[in-house]
Parts: sequence; structure tokens; C-alpha cells
Amino acid sequence: MYYEEQQEPVVQEDDKFLQDPIIRQMVVQLRAVDSYGTYDTWSDARVVDPLVLTKERRRAIPVVGDPDETTISRIKAYYNTLAQLLERETGLLAVPVINITHEGFGRALILVGKLVALDKTLRDVHRFGFESLEALVAEANKQLGKAATLVNEHRTVAEL
Amino acid sequence: MYYEEQQEPVVQEDDKFLQDPIIRQMVVQLRAVDSYGTYDTWSDARVVDPLVLTKERRRAIPVVGDPDETTISRIKAYYNTLAQLLERETGLLAVPVINITHEGFGRALILVGKLVALDKTLRDVHRFGFESLEALVAEANKQLGKAATLVNEHRTVAEL
Repeated sequence: MYYEEQQEPVVQEDDKFLQDPIIRQMVVQLRAVDSYGTYDTWSDARVVDPLVLTKERRRAIPVVGDPDETTISRIKAYYNTLAQLLERETGLLAVPVINITHEGFGRALILVGKLVALDKTLRDVHRFGFESLEALVAEANKQLGKAATLVNEHRTVAEL
Repeated sequence: MYYEEQQEPVVQEDDKFLQDPIIRQMVVQLRAVDSYGTYDTWSDARVVDPLVLTKERRRAIPVVGDPDETTISRIKAYYNTLAQLLERETGLLAVPVINITHEGFGRALILVGKLVALDKTLRDVHRFGFESLEALVAEANKQLGKAATLVNEHRTVAEL
């Protein structure tokens, strides 16, 4: 059912976005949840490669059935990454909360104190991914920027 | 495995707390999730009865294995109730978010706008219950009071 094994990698070993703080943190988070040590011998490019969904890859993913654990662990890694970077930027503890139903819908929150710094409805969880590492970095930076602004505007609540 | 069938009811039909707005809303919420119509012929007292855990009942509940769906639906009904009453009190939409792991730990949130009005760590989910309806009402009122205060103190964030 799953596609990774047969597919050619999309992310090149010299992709300059592999040096971006967001991708570096994604690699850390993905390696952290790799409890079987599958990634131990993999390069960073290979670890983040499944997050890049080209049109062909997207089409190859069946959306029937529950989203698999690997997909969900990638979504968690992504929001853990945002939380980590938000924490670095604001100096306040940021806690990700992910709720995904069996049907592949859900909600991702990042809480800072009593403030909901990020609130994202998740749809089409089966096909979680980005067109390129560049697109991932751009989206993450946009979300981070909004969250950090919210924290700074309502710092009293974020410090509760 | 489950105990309800053999057990004598604890909540009496004339328990005065059955008239309390919190218990009335609990009944509404519990009936709302009763998709098989099991409760259709049941009195309100019987519907809320499993929420009352006497020492004997508590001891009879096994804590191994995943918490069952009925228990989780009761926890959801409880936080839906708090959200409903908080909404009535503050005039703002209150959204419950419940996360429960397979092991029976979790977190219950009630969000009002961008404010985390209630944040409760859930432990020992298998044994979710109260000593009496009175104890349930007292606990719910305490949580509601705190949540409403928070909303009133940080109304700007709650209105986001």
C-alpha cells in the first residue's frame, strides 16, 4: 500500500534548504520519533524526502482508510518543529496539541500559556506534504510569524 | 468486563441535584451521544447514574487496557457541558478539545477565541466519575467559575 520503497527521492542531497533552521529542526523531530532506528543510516535529505509531495506522489496516495502512523508522526514532527521555533523566538514554553480523527480530519494547536498561538484545521491528512522543501519553509515561516505576533500582542495571556 | 448491568443504581429518582442546570445539561449531552437509542427508555437518574462512582464501583473497574468508548463519551459529555454553560455565561463560543491516549491519560481543553479558558490534565480516565451528583455539581461549578473569570479578565483574547 505504501509508496516510499519504490519511489525515487525528490529531495537532492545538496538542496540548500536542508540548512534552513526549520528543516534542520524537522530532521531532529523526525529522528526523535523514529523508535525503530530506521533513519539511523539515512541522510537528512532522505529523512525529509517523504514530506515533499510532487503531483505524482500525491496521486499515488490512497485516501481511503485511516491515515497511517507514519503520516501522523510527520504531522506531529511538523507542529513540534513550529512549537520549538516559536519557543526559541518568544522565550516562552510552546505546547503542540494534535487531534486527528480516524477519517483523517483534525486540528493542530500550539498553546503558549493560556494563549492559542496557532490553530489550524487539518484536512486531507493522508496527503500531508509540501511541493518542495522551499514551500515547507515558506509555509512554516508564515505560520510562525503569525503565532509570534499573536504572542507578542497578548504576552500577558501567553505568560499565564 | 463492564459493570453497569449487574449493579444497583446509586442515584435516586428524587435526587434534588437532577434539577441542577449542570446535571440537566449532562443529561442532554449524554443523550446526544447515545447513537443506539439505549437511553430512550431510561430516566434521567439512570442516564447519569454511571457517573457516580462509589468506592465499591471504583474498585470494580479494571484499569488495564484502553479506556472504553462509553467512558470516553462520558468525559466528552462532561466537558461539552462545561463548554455549553461557559458559553451561556460569557456569550462567547466555547469549544472543548479532548485528547486521550490509549493508556488513559490525556488533556481536556476549553477554548474561547484564542484563550485557553480551561486546561485540565486527565489521569486515571478509566475511573472517571464523582462521589455523588452533588460532588459533580460542586466540581463543575468550581471549574466554570475559574474559566469564566479568565474569560472576563482577558476578554480581548477570548473575542479573537
